[in-house]
Amino acid sequence: MDEKYMSLALKEAEKASNILEVPVGAIIVHKNEVIATGYNMRESLKDPTAHAEIIAIKRASEYLNGWRLINCTMYVTLEPCPMCAGAILNSRIDRLVIGTKDYKMGCCGTVIDLLHNSNFNHKVDTTFGVLEDECKIILKDFFKKLRKK
Amino acid sequence: MDEKYMSLALKEAEKASNILEVPVGAIIVHKNEVIATGYNMRESLKDPTAHAEIIAIKRASEYLNGWRLINCTMYVTLEPCPMCAGAILNSRIDRLVIGTKDYKMGCCGTVIDLLHNSNFNHKVDTTFGVLEDECKIILKDFFKKLRKK
Repeated sequence: MDEKYMSLALKEAEKASNILEVPVGAIIVHKNEVIATGYNMRESLKDPTAHAEIIAIKRASEYLNGWRLINCTMYVTLEPCPMCAGAILNSRIDRLVIGTKDYKMGCCGTVIDLLHNSNFNHKVDTTFGVLEDECKIILKDFFKKLRKK
Repeated sequence: MDEKYMSLALKEAEKASNILEVPVGAIIVHKNEVIATGYNMRESLKDPTAHAEIIAIKRASEYLNGWRLINCTMYVTLEPCPMCAGAILNSRIDRLVIGTKDYKMGCCGTVIDLLHNSNFNHKVDTTFGVLEDECKIILKDFFKKLRKK
């Protein structure tokens, strides 16, 4: 099941790649239904907050008509940055499934762990490494293509 | 100068209080000009990302027509949470001026310091305690009023 949903997040990442955005995709699942999708649009929207996760969280809140994303799981191709990990905390998402680690900015355990900090009022069940190779390759290919240009 | 700008952020916080939102306000200054304002609208917009800082950052990016808020200073009445501290990093804001500390979620030094982490590619010059009493009181009065209701 996790692989099926991660493959949908990968499809979102492809949409980012197609418009020359760093390919990261996210989806949010509520009771076995995909209620929101998002892909990185930082350059296109000229908005530093327009990461895949933030876009998906805003759409899921709209869909559920409230800011608490209870009983929701997010699938994201790359480990969330501080901003996105914080938004996941703020939205009370229950579970986070990550494709590949981010050794530069990853805030779900790799650089810092914001999702299991005893000071904060919410913890997020986190799974790493679902379709890890595919999630790595899409990023690697993107940067290779970018360097050639 | 810092006090003058923080008083504008406090006026934003008042707008939040007037609509029964937790009173936090932010403004962004670029070359001595206020280019963006924001106040917490999480409940009104039913959006977990609709904190004062995120709203101000989106508006400043629109104003400057780009996601990099270089040479910008943010004034915010309450220490930013993980999400907002992360958005400040992502937006490359140079300087952050904070009214009062947040002992629960503050990620600019109080609970965690995301703004001076050697792993990340940006650091933010941070000043605490400008109009601290006023920034504390507006929050205290809000929660007192809320408990009475």
